[in-house]
Amino acid sequence: MQKVLLNWLYKIKQLDYNQTNMTELKNKQWIYSKRPEKLVDDSHYTLIEKTLKLSDLKPGLALIKSEYFSIDPYMRIQQSGKETWEEPHPLNTVQGGAVIGQIVEINDPESDLKKGDWVLSYTGWQEFAITETNSLRKLNPKEVPVSTALGILGMPARIAYFGLIEAGKPKKDETVVVSGASGAVGQVVVQIAKIKGCRVIGIAGSDEKTTFLKDTLGVDETINYKKYPSIRQMKNKLSKVCPEGVDIYFDNVGGYITDAIFEVINVHARIIICGQISQYSGGLDNPELGPRFLHKMLYKRATIQGVLSRDYNYRMDEMLKEMTPWVKDKSIKYKETIVEGFENLPKALNMLFYGENMGKLIVKV
Amino acid sequence: MQKVLLNWLYKIKQLDYNQTNMTELKNKQWIYSKRPEKLVDDSHYTLIEKTLKLSDLKPGLALIKSEYFSIDPYMRIQQSGKETWEEPHPLNTVQGGAVIGQIVEINDPESDLKKGDWVLSYTGWQEFAITETNSLRKLNPKEVPVSTALGILGMPARIAYFGLIEAGKPKKDETVVVSGASGAVGQVVVQIAKIKGCRVIGIAGSDEKTTFLKDTLGVDETINYKKYPSIRQMKNKLSKVCPEGVDIYFDNVGGYITDAIFEVINVHARIIICGQISQYSGGLDNPELGPRFLHKMLYKRATIQGVLSRDYNYRMDEMLKEMTPWVKDKSIKYKETIVEGFENLPKALNMLFYGENMGKLIVKV
Repeated sequence: MQKVLLNWLYKIKQLDYNQTNMTELKNKQWIYSKRPEKLVDDSHYTLIEKTLKLSDLKPGLALIKSEYFSIDPYMRIQQSGKETWEEPHPLNTVQGGAVIGQIVEINDPESDLKKGDWVLSYTGWQEFAITETNSLRKLNPKEVPVSTALGILGMPARIAYFGLIEAGKPKKDETVVVSGASGAVGQVVVQIAKIKGCRVIGIAGSDEKTTFLKDTLGVDETINYKKYPSIRQMKNKLSKVCPEGVDIYFDNVGGYITDAIFEVINVHARIIICGQISQYSGGLDNPELGPRFLHKMLYKRATIQGVLSRDYNYRMDEMLKEMTPWVKDKSIKYKETIVEGFENLPKALNMLFYGENMGKLIVKV
Repeated sequence: MQKVLLNWLYKIKQLDYNQTNMTELKNKQWIYSKRPEKLVDDSHYTLIEKTLKLSDLKPGLALIKSEYFSIDPYMRIQQSGKETWEEPHPLNTVQGGAVIGQIVEINDPESDLKKGDWVLSYTGWQEFAITETNSLRKLNPKEVPVSTALGILGMPARIAYFGLIEAGKPKKDETVVVSGASGAVGQVVVQIAKIKGCRVIGIAGSDEKTTFLKDTLGVDETINYKKYPSIRQMKNKLSKVCPEGVDIYFDNVGGYITDAIFEVINVHARIIICGQISQYSGGLDNPELGPRFLHKMLYKRATIQGVLSRDYNYRMDEMLKEMTPWVKDKSIKYKETIVEGFENLPKALNMLFYGENMGKLIVKV
């Protein structure tokens, strides 16, 4: 089921749409139908088929054929019963999410978009979607593979970039620790930190991941957290690999790994909360208990800052301007984990919480 | 034992030192002799008497007679077995701390100081001390009562001022919640927040304290936390008195009150960790457990920042320049709790952890 594609290995497929006689389409949709209490899986989704009429393609709209679906931890946050950055994801609707697709039909002469264009949309888990043309971002498949718009040049990269640079303020020779380091965000953070001249420690959940971090991404030290399963063990390991303490901790994971970090931070450390994936499967509604640590913030005059990718939407161009050349000249490398088959979308989401992905997790139809 | 002196009520006493024939003094000292595991009290101190020879008054030194001792929560932090912002307080030495006293003798013709001057020193719990003249800050008893140099114009005010203004960045009409609001730091924070045009909610541990906060200091709403002894109860009360959420939380207390705050913070809230007094009596060495809350930092893109008064030592003049007129014209009011008697020093420290003080806690010989 899992196929890892590194950098440029992925061949762009151009669809041929000469379907001018088409009046309606069968459209499969994954409906989010039941709130998970712990892990999310197939049982929380219902697969349906609906008819999509081309007569619904009113002016200003485009018909998109979905090709790549973004699978992200935030989806599980939205499934929490509690309000987070917005209301919980409504039940009995198509699972939301970012999609890369091609325009099949378009009814908007004023738009720069045309049939066959690759676009990024937020139309969720369905094979086709009719959506407003002004909600679409056009992609250039000749420049970089279109799937990069979901990962290394998309939402995860945006928060990696602005989170590290603006909340983290990395300085040369500082020690940066990244949890979830081989994930969609982490793989970007570790490399930008290296570009900024930092000493970088990547924490991940398998030897395959730590090897990728060290050999491909060039991080200085790695920790397979499964070998250090308590606060004390993690703290001791961190002390060894960070002999000068930790200046920046970019946290995608939370839980005991983060508890251990508070034992080794330096004065004026910056802790960036980008994700807390260890807490998402239940811990948001019924929080786990952990040791109170805020007194340590006082000793170290440290800062914890929560960051959210959407806060930087309006600065996307700024990020792309710096990151795209890095991706093109391979100063920044990346992995994608591609799961094939529309029918595997719920399974793919579940994979995130078992750490089965390396880099960005994508479902390809 | 306890005597509360408001504002200008305190009469300055000028000592008369015509003790030119003095060659030695009996000097009582409180020796910190045993690490507390929970609360600190008399049993962790030993009272001794030493002879202090005036022949030890080498060039560059002054002999100080202690008059007012500062009693501060940080003393208990230093008694923790763990390293905090510095090494633990060494056993079998005089308990450290800030003192206001008068110069009895001075051996430094180049110093601006002279016999009879009031000075701030860090000579700890002893009746007399010989110390370097360049470690002393001269006080002007004609301007404000000298005891203010320990509280409303001293270390607690410094962190209240810089912590609120620089870490908190209060904006007009924002909601500011302060825990430990009637303490030495809190009483300053609530008033500066009012001066900055904020809506201010003070949390304290008795009706006497909340009355002081409302009637004397002019805070908008108060919470006697003892009436809301769980996270849920505190959260519900906070929701009622902060209908527009919390923008700034200035935390002197920690524990479940702070947990409840994370339920009601607004986007881009600033949480300032100035103290965690609920955790000091044991919780530093063996942390209490509390619900993991870092995921909420993410939803609210909030910031937690630890602040420490000594980081702003070098900006003391800047603070005094703004605060002294406020204290003189009573735009800022304050309380001091004065415990009389050198013999009561350990008891007074213990009082802090039972919340028996209002405003700055001071021991007067």
